[in-house]
Parts: sequence; C-alpha cells; structure tokens
Amino acid sequence: MTRGFLIGRFQPFHNGHLSMVERIAEDVDELVVGIGSAGDSHTRRNPFTAGERVMMISKALIDVDLVTYVVPIEDLERNSVWVSHVRSMSPDFEIAYSNNPLVIQLFREAGVEVRQSPMFNRDTFEGTQIRERMVADDDWESLVPDAVVSVVSEIDGLERMEMINRTDANGDG
Amino acid sequence: MTRGFLIGRFQPFHNGHLSMVERIAEDVDELVVGIGSAGDSHTRRNPFTAGERVMMISKALIDVDLVTYVVPIEDLERNSVWVSHVRSMSPDFEIAYSNNPLVIQLFREAGVEVRQSPMFNRDTFEGTQIRERMVADDDWESLVPDAVVSVVSEIDGLERMEMINRTDANGDG
Amino acid sequence: MTRGFLIGRFQPFHNGHLSMVERIAEDVDELVVGIGSAGDSHTRRNPFTAGERVMMISKALIDVDLVTYVVPIEDLERNSVWVSHVRSMSPDFEIAYSNNPLVIQLFREAGVEVRQSPMFNRDTFEGTQIRERMVADDDWESLVPDAVVSVVSEIDGLERMEMINRTDANGDG
Amino acid sequence: MTRGFLIGRFQPFHNGHLSMVERIAEDVDELVVGIGSAGDSHTRRNPFTAGERVMMISKALIDVDLVTYVVPIEDLERNSVWVSHVRSMSPDFEIAYSNNPLVIQLFREAGVEVRQSPMFNRDTFEGTQIRERMVADDDWESLVPDAVVSVVSEIDGLERMEMINRTDANGDG
Amino acid sequence: MTRGFLIGRFQPFHNGHLSMVERIAEDVDELVVGIGSAGDSHTRRNPFTAGERVMMISKALIDVDLVTYVVPIEDLERNSVWVSHVRSMSPDFEIAYSNNPLVIQLFREAGVEVRQSPMFNRDTFEGTQIRERMVADDDWESLVPDAVVSVVSEIDGLERMEMINRTDANGDG
Amino acid sequence: MTRGFLIGRFQPFHNGHLSMVERIAEDVDELVVGIGSAGDSHTRRNPFTAGERVMMISKALIDVDLVTYVVPIEDLERNSVWVSHVRSMSPDFEIAYSNNPLVIQLFREAGVEVRQSPMFNRDTFEGTQIRERMVADDDWESLVPDAVVSVVSEIDGLERMEMINRTDANGDG
Repeated sequence: MTRGFLIGRFQPFHNGHLSMVERIAEDVDELVVGIGSAGDSHTRRNPFTAGERVMMISKALIDVDLVTYVVPIEDLERNSVWVSHVRSMSPDFEIAYSNNPLVIQLFREAGVEVRQSPMFNRDTFEGTQIRERMVADDDWESLVPDAVVSVVSEIDGLERMEMINRTDANGDG
Repeated sequence: MTRGFLIGRFQPFHNGHLSMVERIAEDVDELVVGIGSAGDSHTRRNPFTAGERVMMISKALIDVDLVTYVVPIEDLERNSVWVSHVRSMSPDFEIAYSNNPLVIQLFREAGVEVRQSPMFNRDTFEGTQIRERMVADDDWESLVPDAVVSVVSEIDGLERMEMINRTDANGDG
Repeated sequence: MTRGFLIGRFQPFHNGHLSMVERIAEDVDELVVGIGSAGDSHTRRNPFTAGERVMMISKALIDVDLVTYVVPIEDLERNSVWVSHVRSMSPDFEIAYSNNPLVIQLFREAGVEVRQSPMFNRDTFEGTQIRERMVADDDWESLVPDAVVSVVSEIDGLERMEMINRTDANGDG
Repeated sequence: MTRGFLIGRFQPFHNGHLSMVERIAEDVDELVVGIGSAGDSHTRRNPFTAGERVMMISKALIDVDLVTYVVPIEDLERNSVWVSHVRSMSPDFEIAYSNNPLVIQLFREAGVEVRQSPMFNRDTFEGTQIRERMVADDDWESLVPDAVVSVVSEIDGLERMEMINRTDANGDG
Repeated sequence: MTRGFLIGRFQPFHNGHLSMVERIAEDVDELVVGIGSAGDSHTRRNPFTAGERVMMISKALIDVDLVTYVVPIEDLERNSVWVSHVRSMSPDFEIAYSNNPLVIQLFREAGVEVRQSPMFNRDTFEGTQIRERMVADDDWESLVPDAVVSVVSEIDGLERMEMINRTDANGDG
Repeated sequence: MTRGFLIGRFQPFHNGHLSMVERIAEDVDELVVGIGSAGDSHTRRNPFTAGERVMMISKALIDVDLVTYVVPIEDLERNSVWVSHVRSMSPDFEIAYSNNPLVIQLFREAGVEVRQSPMFNRDTFEGTQIRERMVADDDWESLVPDAVVSVVSEIDGLERMEMINRTDANGDG
C-alpha cells in the first residue's frame, strides 16, 4: 500500500489539479490532498474558506478511482517546522507531490521523497488567471470541474470576489 | 439534502462514537466529523495527532452508509469565535450534534440548531477510561472499531502513551 | 492632570470594584479601566466577553464624577512584556492601582508607580463568590451595580453560566 | 435604543472621521468606535499605538452629542472569524458603518446590516495623505481635530514618524 | 566532532544540571544547552526570564572544559513539531540528552538518538525543591553554582519570587 | 562592567558585521548578539535558520577578544512590546547598537541608550547583495568570515537558496 500527499491552496480547485490527481492515481493506492493556507479566506489570493475548498475537492474527486483524504492545513508561518506540521495533520504518506521549489526543498531537507507532479497545462490553468477571469466575468467555468462551479454558485462566490477586489483600490480613509 | 456536524477530540475514536454516527445517519444525508484540538498530541489527554485520528475515523466509517468529511480543527483558544472558526473549516452544515454543554451553548448563541447526540453507553465508552486501559494494558480493543486497533498498532501508540504517562511523575529536574 | 490605571478581569464588575473606582477618583483626574483577559469568555472563570464587560463598566460608572476610558486588553501570555502591552493599549498613565502581587511586581520592575487599591470588603465581593451565587441562583444582584444586573439579563448571562458550569462534569466522551 | 459600530484604523483620527461620526449621530443613540489593527504601531501605515488612538478619538468626540465607546481591536489575521471577534470585543450593535468593501462583505455574510458611511471629502482627508504631510512637515493640522494635534505633540509623534520613514530606505545591513 | 543537546527549563540552573554537563562533556566535543519555555517568566514554576537563565548558565559553565552554546527556545505549544522547532533554533546536534519521557519519546519518533542523562541526586537537586527553599528563605545557595547566586541577587530574584508566590492565594477580586 | 547589545538578522553574518563587533569591543566588556527574526528561514530574505546563524556567529567571533552571548530572538510582530521582548531574552545590557532607525526609535522610547554602530562599508557588505551573489554564484566568500563559508557549505546552503529563489517565479498553480 502506497499513500501520496499533494499540497496546494486550491483557490479554486481546477482542471489542472484534477489532471494531477488522475496521474498520481496511477502511482499510489491512496492520496492525501492537503489544503494549504487553510485559515486564509476573503482575500484576492485566497478567496475561499477551507471548508468551501473541502467541498470543491471532495465533490470533484468523487469519480476518480482513488481513496482520498482531504485535510485543511493552517499556516504556522514557520518554514522550518512546516513538514512536521503537515505530517501531524495528515495520514502517514511515503511520497509528496509538488512542483513548488520551496515545498520540494522543505520535504527534501526532511528526508521525504518528492516527485514533481506530472506536467499540466500551466498557461490555461493557473489559479491566478482563473481568479482574474472570475472577477472579470470571463469564462472560467470551462477550466474547473462542474462541482467547483456549483460550490462557487451556492456560496455567492463571484459576488464575494468582486467585493474583495474593490478593497485595495479603496484606501484606508 | 441535509448535512450534519459532529465535533469531538476522538482520542481515540471508539464504539460509542461509531454508534453516534450510525444514529445520526438516520437524520442526515452527509456528515462532517470535526476533529477538535487538532494541534494537540503526545499528551495524556490527547495522545494522537490529527492525522492519526483522520485515519482512525476514515477507516472506521468505511462501512457506514453515509457521505462523511473528516476535518481537523485546530484550537483558536477563543470561545467567542469558535463557531465561526469551525464553519470556516467545514463544509456548510445545518445541524450540529453534541452532548457537550459548552459546545451546545456556543452553537445556540450563534443561532445554529443543535441536537443532543443520541444516547450511548457512557460508562463503558468514555475516552478517559479507554486511555487508562490502554496505558494499563487492560482490554481496550473490544471498545473501539478494528480500524482503530490497527492504527494504534501501526504507530506504536501504546508505547507512546506509556512514555507520556511517565512524564508528569518525573518532575522538572 | 493625573491619570490612573486599574486592571481587572471584571467577571463581573461588582460593588467592590465600584468602591475602588470611587476611592481612586479622589486621587486622579482621569482613570483607564483595563479589562484583562479580554479574549476569554464562556468559561467558569471568565463567563463574559470583553464587549459585555465594556457595557457593564461603562454603564456602572456613568454617575461617577471621573473621566474614564474602558479598554479591553487581550492576554499575550508573556509576563515579561505585559506592561509594555498594557501601555500600548492604554492612554498614558502615571499611577497603576492593583492589589494583585504579580501585577504589582511587573509594574515595579518596569518602573511604574503602583498603589495598592483602597481596601474593600473582600469577603463579600470576591468575583469567585459572585459567580458561584449566579450559578446557584443565590442572591448576587445586591453585590453588583444595577447596570450589571441589566447587562446580565439582556445577554441571558445566567443561562450561559449554567450551561458552562455543566461542562467539566461531563467528560470528553 | 439603537447602537452603531464604526471600524477604522484611525492613523490618525481626522476631520473626515469626525464628519462621519456626526452624520452617524443622526441615526443612532450610541456608537462604538472600533480601533482596528490595535496591536500595530511604529510603522509607516500604522504609526500610533492603540492607546494613543484611544486618546485622539475620545478627546475629539467630547463635544459630539452621542454616547460613544472606543474599543481597540487587535487583528486575528483570519477574515472568516473577524466579525465574531469584533462582536466579542464590542458592546452589542445593530448597524455597522463602513465604506470598506471587505468589511462590508464580511458583515453581510454574517447577517449584520451595513450602511455605507455618509460621504466625506476623500481627496482631502485620506489617512495616507495626512501621514505623508506629517512626515513632509506640510500642513496637516488643519485636517484633524485639535485634540489630535495635541496628542501627536505630547507623544513626539512627528519625530517618531520621521524615524520610521527612514527605515525602509536603510536596508538590512 | 560530536555535538550534544541538553534541554531544560533551568529554573534555576543548579548543581545537578552542572554535574550533568560535566558528565556529558566526557561524551561530546560541543554541547548546546537549550533553555525551554523561554517565553515564560514571573510565575512560580518559571520565575526567571530566558535572559536571566542565559546569564546563569553561561557564567556557571565558564570553567567547564567544553564548547557550549546557550540557546533560548520559546514554546510552540505543539508537541508534534517540537523537535523541528528545537532543531531550527539550535546548531546541528547528533545526540540529545534527557531524562524526561515526553522529550525522549518526541526525539525518538523523529529518529534522533537520545541518551538518558547521567544520574544525579534527584532528591537534593530538584528544581521544585530549590524554588520552594528560595521562597521560604531556607538554604538554597549551597545547591546551585555561585554564578547563579550572583545573578539571583543582581535581579532581586528572591523578592520577585516572594511576590509571585502571594498571587494565587489572593484570588481575583 | 559594561554590556552592549547588537541586533541583526545576520542573513548571513558578514565582514561588515564582524567589523562592527570589533569596534564595539573597544567600548564594552561583554556583548549580546541578538539574532532577529529567529523563526524565519527558507525565504529569500531569511534563508538560514536561527541555529545555523548561531553557528556562523559563534564560530566567526572565536578570535575576537570579547565575551559574547548569541541569542535567537523570535518576532512577536508587535513593535510596541519589542524592546521588552528583547530584554527578556537577553542578559541585561546598558547600550544598544544599531543603525536601523526603527530599532533606534523603539529603544529610545523605552529609555535605552542607543549608539549608531560604527560605520562600515555599506556598499560592499549589504546582506541583500551578498544573498544575490550567493544565488548568482558570484564571489561572496570574500565578503564573509571563513566560518560562514564553512557553515553554508555544511548545510548545502547554496542549493537551498537556489531552490527558494525559484519559488516566486513559479506561481501558485
């Protein structure tokens, strides 16, 4: 039995993430999906709460043939203890998947095997771009699983993002 | 669709908890199991990490016919914001289940419907008692799901509990 | 112009506190009332939120002839920086009033003049006793200003205290 | 009886803020002024401590015919629990006043009525501009209540701001 | 080159600690002395600040023939990340010395070699006993290195301990 | 006996810092070197852990004729309590050395004597420049004490910095 670990902020979970999970499913029997910056929400970079992201991911992975655990992970703001923190919040895993150089470095210094997650179409699927499209009311629905469209709709997510987006321009009075 | 929320520390998850979930399954379509004090571990009262508890609960609920989400929830040490914190970490829910008077009070002040969770055999299944049996090497295996026995064994949990138990008696040098 | 500083948890603000303020009013022109452990609430020892305590104190001091500032002060859990923290949250003051030996010691080490607050009837007015009476439904109203009775009533404070009181006896399931 | 809530950082409290309070006074019987980012001080964006801001605001509002409570509110760095945090620190309120889109969104999601605070002359009274004038030794005194000029003078505020302003340019050695 | 690590709260550093260091000096070339609970001070259990303890230890070890590093380590309140935290604050070490079962367990789970520190006369040298003697004005000076007597005297440590000791008996008014 | 205090992040400790210490050695009998932002590591601005920096500094100062204490100081994120925090972590000192205007201001407001640290060649020795050279594989070794070159090599510091440097360019997927 092999268990993998995939960390991300998933703001929101999109088709690129889904492809990654499907490719990882070929390697492992079980996968822990760690939701990073779980305490952050209602910002441009992190519009959705951890609970909303748990919903998006759990629903989007229903049809993937893989046992998955979806675990919110709050920031500790200490890189040097981050791997220990992740491990304490997650079922035990043997392989971490990440393309993020800092994450790779931290796992390597802790002696954890890291695999760069399989390539995916960065240009189309970047989280930043998707969030920009959501605010601009451009097409974003085609870039995320249907489950994510549903969750965003249920929580009035576009309205929230539009409001947050106005904040910085507005100064501090 | 109705979603419920059940909070506990689950140190460890035991047959009393399992009965509760089975009774709640008659009320709701989906259930979020919130693991409280998720950051605590390696103490007498909280021997297991959140990740270990995620494993115990997920494995123990495999055969229960209910969609479940298992979500670690770190303490914020602020009762007045606790409900908001829980809600931000959890998929949205309509009904909270708890027998803990403080938890009931906090949910009620926040306007959340609370149901006392169905009765279960307190005398036998108290977490405190089970932990004492684990340290004393009395029978505890019959009081928890098999999945919990397996997890405790894999992580050398009894050895950990035995070591922790010696700490307080040992003073501070 | 002299400004004094009086710290307490005020759980709740009672007639002993009121007498202290009235005596201090003879010494100073203005008084800052610091509400300690401002982040704590919904516990036996700290049932009321900082906001509820701000109300109690502000209303109770309306007829005292003294300019007062009521300032919630959250715990930093660090005795060594406590005086600096208090000073950063409070209008500047020359004299601190306290009977608490730790508080006196911390102010003295920081070079702040401390006066033991004028004597008051400890036996009758101890916060602990008043909280016990509130839970037991014994007479407590005569020991606090009317404004405090009103605030406790508006927030259903007795019900809250009764619920909290049941918690410890109830174990951890 | 209606109580309103106005949040701001008030770095410093200026004539625009004063006009807002005067307009809100037409709506409500009492007003809580919440001092945001209360733990921040000695930075370009937040030069003054919470205690210094309590002084500025309390003195500036002496002649306004309105019962006011001035309450420092430390950041929790968690948008999802911010409204609960504010409520725990403040006397209960029915209406929140704000022009900040994030604040408006957070209150709305929590079911609190929000009114955009009455318009005021943004161009002249922006906090950022006033702070820049204070550092540059341009006229700023005409843009704030007299009480604020006094407080800034008593605490040698301009000297502090001038020192802080030099910091970023100075690197990290 | 071998480097060891010795953790303790050192409230205060006493002859038992000194003997331990002398025995460890036979094993290793360098020793890191980690001062635990570095943020705590002015309590019965932790009367001295980290800085005061740095002084005590550094002065007491001057004549020990061993390269030592004295490093304050603040609590993170998370057992599961404690070893990572310690490692990030300390020069790299190969062997940890401790008699504390929790500390031993945490290091073992992290794969660090632990040696029980050489036996010493617990009955005489317990920190708790020494602190009690200090408060009671019994002989304590003979149980600690001279450097510790000097530091306690310079900081008026006995007066501080006497004040702190009165606090709990004094209630909360 | 006079003791000085020098604060810095020392990312890494370089020849400019060494010159400062040598100049300060003419003024004082003992020096505390405070390692700021001790909890930060694995970032562009703060690549090294506190423990790694303790090693760098301790080894680099071996031949300086001055009693030194090297003390990691974690950030509290509160300028108003920073001086108290520093004092609680450090042996007592009479004079603080700094060129940082914020640090100077904070010490002055707390009544601590501050001396601008003796001039050194800013253009050559800036920490930022040295870190850039380390990433770019330009000569940096000549700008730091030999002990620092050794520590960076032992911990594979250049590889870490190179990985961290790639992170920001890589987006958030």
